[in-house]
Amino acid sequence: MLTSDARAQLTVVLVGARNPSNIGAAARAIYDFGFSDLRVVNEYAAPFEAAQLEDQSAGLPEVKSAVRASSVMQRARRFDALAEAIADCQLVVGTTAIGAREMRQKIEPIRETAPRVREALDGGLRVALLFGSEKTGLTNDQLSHCSVLTTVPMYQPEGERHLSMNLGQSVAVCLYELSREGFDGMRELPVLHEAAATVEDRERLTQLLLDAMHVTGYTRRYPHNAHEPLVRQLVQQLGTSHREAMTWMGFLRQVLRREQGETQ
Amino acid sequence: MLTSDARAQLTVVLVGARNPSNIGAAARAIYDFGFSDLRVVNEYAAPFEAAQLEDQSAGLPEVKSAVRASSVMQRARRFDALAEAIADCQLVVGTTAIGAREMRQKIEPIRETAPRVREALDGGLRVALLFGSEKTGLTNDQLSHCSVLTTVPMYQPEGERHLSMNLGQSVAVCLYELSREGFDGMRELPVLHEAAATVEDRERLTQLLLDAMHVTGYTRRYPHNAHEPLVRQLVQQLGTSHREAMTWMGFLRQVLRREQGETQ
Repeated sequence: MLTSDARAQLTVVLVGARNPSNIGAAARAIYDFGFSDLRVVNEYAAPFEAAQLEDQSAGLPEVKSAVRASSVMQRARRFDALAEAIADCQLVVGTTAIGAREMRQKIEPIRETAPRVREALDGGLRVALLFGSEKTGLTNDQLSHCSVLTTVPMYQPEGERHLSMNLGQSVAVCLYELSREGFDGMRELPVLHEAAATVEDRERLTQLLLDAMHVTGYTRRYPHNAHEPLVRQLVQQLGTSHREAMTWMGFLRQVLRREQGETQ
Repeated sequence: MLTSDARAQLTVVLVGARNPSNIGAAARAIYDFGFSDLRVVNEYAAPFEAAQLEDQSAGLPEVKSAVRASSVMQRARRFDALAEAIADCQLVVGTTAIGAREMRQKIEPIRETAPRVREALDGGLRVALLFGSEKTGLTNDQLSHCSVLTTVPMYQPEGERHLSMNLGQSVAVCLYELSREGFDGMRELPVLHEAAATVEDRERLTQLLLDAMHVTGYTRRYPHNAHEPLVRQLVQQLGTSHREAMTWMGFLRQVLRREQGETQ
């Protein structure tokens, strides 16, 4: 259970992201899971400024990626260098798609990294979660700033080289994994207010269906299908709520009425 | 452990997606986790055709969303109506962000739905996983085709209305959850070939560091910090591999050499 205090300690760092839409998509994923701190490392200000601009004009139909993530984009900061962006962090976790490089550090799947990150956040440490550029991912130099390397396990088609996930999707999956065990401020799932059907409902329904089968001549034509135990089993699958059971009963009563020569 | 046969039984259905980039992003997520079947329900062919076109021209710098998901986009099919798209499916799971509507069915978090979906796939059932349009999500009418409703739990800021996740991110998170326990064909994490540092390495390093502290005069200035147990503990944190331990030893020997008046 991730508290909001713990979540405030997480910093997502996009290193060298070039596409403003990806920065916006990352901001939106950060917001979706209740995190807040986004830092962008890029010596050129253009992609970051374009993402901020997109955010400000969100609501225009052509600008979609950062919709409703304004609070994250407004607080986001740009840095020229990675070391500067993570200077105040106490645990630095790098994401990598592995690729063809020879790895010097152990890489673990994100589901194994997540408990460690949550523990650090709970302990009040500032944790940086680094994502590389769309094109190259984190370079070896950038990875050397990390004490933990993590990855989203992906399909590797035989003989094909499958590089990396979409940046926004990668951020979303990693933050989902961190939040997976639940977090305060999580949207509550609606409680179903409908009463469940009772055994009595089902038994009345069974008897009505048997009557309707009899009256309409179904029982005569297919006697094997109209045995009471079979019909009772059939009714087990009819609706789960009292309301649904009542709908069936109403319908069957109507069939009986029509058979008895009533016109309504 | 999801087998490739089981994965082949999953069908991702985008209902009413309007943005070709989102269709491409969904195709890419499907490919990333080793799934293959994408169906798009839309009475207008334009978004689907645009997504196919984007896919064919992937590699062009301005077209990124469906990169490397060609096999999925090539096989993808468009349907005019939802019922037609899911006609051959045996379990239909709808995703919803809940929103303000009154819900008639129970909604469970995706991590609770995933085991059930995996079991169905393993049993050879064709499972449809439905995602609604970017704007409205699945409508009540569309949800009524589903026997299971699922959601990615999201942050709900107090007083704010937070509608939904980005479509591509939502597909990625759901497929990640299905694949989270591992799947065949998953990219293997590289095995670290570097030998770990031994206790002997660390003990030699401890003695070298003590020598260097002594020779450089550090021990005289800060005797409390140069106690052997403290220094041994310090060395516990120095590098984890034999190679790293050797680098430290080489450096300390060089310090000693310089102190002894050697010039190299």
